[in-house]
Amino acid sequence: MISAGFIAIGTEILLGNIYDTTTNFLAKKLKEIGVVLQKSVAVRDDVSSIVGALKYCEDTDIVFLSGGLGPTDDDITREACAEYLGTKLIFDEALWSKIKLYFNRINRKIAESNKKQATTFAGAESIDNLNGTAPGIFYKKEKTLYFLLPGPPRENIPMVNSFVVNKLSQMNMIKGSFFEKIFRLYNIGESDIADIFKDIKFDGFDIGYYFNKEGWVEIHITGMFENQEKVDLISLPVVRKVIDIFNKNGIFWTEDKPLSSIAYSLLKNKNLTISFAESMTGGSLSGDMVSNPGVSEFFKGSVVAYTNEIKTKLLGVKSETLTKFGSVSPQTAEEMVKGLKPIFNTNIAASITGVAASESESDDKPVGLVYFGFIFENETIVKRENFTGSRERIIQRAKNYVFIEILKRYLF
Amino acid sequence: MISAGFIAIGTEILLGNIYDTTTNFLAKKLKEIGVVLQKSVAVRDDVSSIVGALKYCEDTDIVFLSGGLGPTDDDITREACAEYLGTKLIFDEALWSKIKLYFNRINRKIAESNKKQATTFAGAESIDNLNGTAPGIFYKKEKTLYFLLPGPPRENIPMVNSFVVNKLSQMNMIKGSFFEKIFRLYNIGESDIADIFKDIKFDGFDIGYYFNKEGWVEIHITGMFENQEKVDLISLPVVRKVIDIFNKNGIFWTEDKPLSSIAYSLLKNKNLTISFAESMTGGSLSGDMVSNPGVSEFFKGSVVAYTNEIKTKLLGVKSETLTKFGSVSPQTAEEMVKGLKPIFNTNIAASITGVAASESESDDKPVGLVYFGFIFENETIVKRENFTGSRERIIQRAKNYVFIEILKRYLF
Repeated sequence: MISAGFIAIGTEILLGNIYDTTTNFLAKKLKEIGVVLQKSVAVRDDVSSIVGALKYCEDTDIVFLSGGLGPTDDDITREACAEYLGTKLIFDEALWSKIKLYFNRINRKIAESNKKQATTFAGAESIDNLNGTAPGIFYKKEKTLYFLLPGPPRENIPMVNSFVVNKLSQMNMIKGSFFEKIFRLYNIGESDIADIFKDIKFDGFDIGYYFNKEGWVEIHITGMFENQEKVDLISLPVVRKVIDIFNKNGIFWTEDKPLSSIAYSLLKNKNLTISFAESMTGGSLSGDMVSNPGVSEFFKGSVVAYTNEIKTKLLGVKSETLTKFGSVSPQTAEEMVKGLKPIFNTNIAASITGVAASESESDDKPVGLVYFGFIFENETIVKRENFTGSRERIIQRAKNYVFIEILKRYLF
Repeated sequence: MISAGFIAIGTEILLGNIYDTTTNFLAKKLKEIGVVLQKSVAVRDDVSSIVGALKYCEDTDIVFLSGGLGPTDDDITREACAEYLGTKLIFDEALWSKIKLYFNRINRKIAESNKKQATTFAGAESIDNLNGTAPGIFYKKEKTLYFLLPGPPRENIPMVNSFVVNKLSQMNMIKGSFFEKIFRLYNIGESDIADIFKDIKFDGFDIGYYFNKEGWVEIHITGMFENQEKVDLISLPVVRKVIDIFNKNGIFWTEDKPLSSIAYSLLKNKNLTISFAESMTGGSLSGDMVSNPGVSEFFKGSVVAYTNEIKTKLLGVKSETLTKFGSVSPQTAEEMVKGLKPIFNTNIAASITGVAASESESDDKPVGLVYFGFIFENETIVKRENFTGSRERIIQRAKNYVFIEILKRYLF
């Protein structure tokens, strides 16, 4: 097993001004190539903190550092590493030329302070940075590899994906092939999933469950195998078996993609058009749809009818209906979708009306109560759901519900 | 100076399956109360890793741990801490009663495995968890304080905000008063801001700039002072001076809140109603508006006219206009908003039509070109902008633009 440690250097992280997102990226990347990330540390920009973190990571085979490679005085990662490694910083003429070229390319004047970025350790290899001014440094001491990378993800991600992966591959440190399959499961809790899968084991595979607060449970099936051929051979039956379990238990599942994007693929595939009449969700359902480039052929538009007046005026919901049953009622949901259909003339029309927050709550209309109207071609269906949670979560669940109903209708 | 270390426990973090967001929350919170977060570590759920992390944090006054307090076998934070602290785990009858009560309250059956969550150290204090089954543990050994907290933010955040802060306050460990003021600046780059502020210093205050990818630059003015009185006394002139600099340089700035929420406050304050005609943004502008509870009095609704046909049918945009000038044109933006106004009869009406992605690009209509129509009471205005970046970013910038125009109109 090859192990790694990661050190994020930046006082800003420990002040809460910025997030360290490199841990997550690096964790995923290392998992893919079979390297075990043992620990991740964030420390302040001072020499003793960085040296302390390096000591803490000395039981790993590879140490990654990010941040503190800039030209200013508080960028002291190079100095701290030199101290820890017992080596000296040298000025590298060739590196300096490269940095000057970079500045030239992006049309920026180079400052004298940037010379600092051309210092490195004797015997180190520099790592090109195509998206910033700070080059990275690769250094090997005894059996341990050190990769010093700049902090911004748009700079360090390409460096990991190319230089780091190539280097580890050259050094024969990438063992085996990683397999990962993620499903999203809707309308089921994490513990129910755990119950269903509790006696199910697949040799060489791990199964993990993660709750995503946007309203689904993720199931991750992962494993590390000798080579890609082996992965292809043994993963397929496992995936089929898992899908079989979902289906037998009546669990609605999708690939690891947003529902709106899966719905879009369906519309495209079946050549179906769609429109929405939104009250509670206030346009955000349509907004999700539009996050898919090219959707205009299938998504025709929406009426956001946030008030009763507009429900009547644009969608033809009868005033009597609103007075007698209220705006959150099966009758209103039905009249909304029936009014919507002839406006856009789409194959699918859907309406949402519900109570997202306590200010519109009444005795018989609790928070979380949502009515949906659907017209699939000529068939009208009205559905009712009770969601729990915050305003934001109720709106999210209601949007999920619409996409799921459409997918259920056309996929099964 | 009182220092702290944080240990996030969870193999999932180091596999990249979940993000550690507690570091960021804790960093901000500790900054507020004058405690210096020195290091933050993420480690796997195994005893030796946790013990290693505890040793790494032994030079701090307070150690926070989160995660691994659940009922299952891989939750071993208590065991690892007991080993490191040289103490024993004991079963706490009173704690067990509390946990049983919690399960009762949320209508869930308690499992035998949950008994594990009622174990603690002799002499420790348990921390109530109002949002989950895992109680926290507070333990003091010699001069060091240990807070063991559950992993999910919705459980550990309330525990930090109440128990931890109260405990530190009781122990007289909260020194001084923290000041922080954040502004959001629109339509200006980070480096331009840095240039403007480069010679400006305020005694005792730090100024930081952070780019937020949703389309603004944040400026953070922070400082730590003896007491709140001192903060009130010296922060006001600094804030006024900073605002003065923004205004002199023609920078559009807001408080640290979403534009849609500031726009909502404005509407409420001035008793103004609003409606939108959305093409490119596809309903998401309205969706942002609706994220504000109680908005229905002021936001009446929208027409999402994603196709030319609907622009004509619902908004009365002339076919000749669309043929002659195209859907992305000042003429179309104007006719959209003029068609919208009488439908909703609002004080403010706004329309958006633009090119968000390359599939709808044409020679004279490049990606990022957006036209806006506004009617403020009776005055019609058409604006044009060119945004850069991804589809997502162009849509975000266009939405920001609408809110900024409305704020500029009514605030200045």
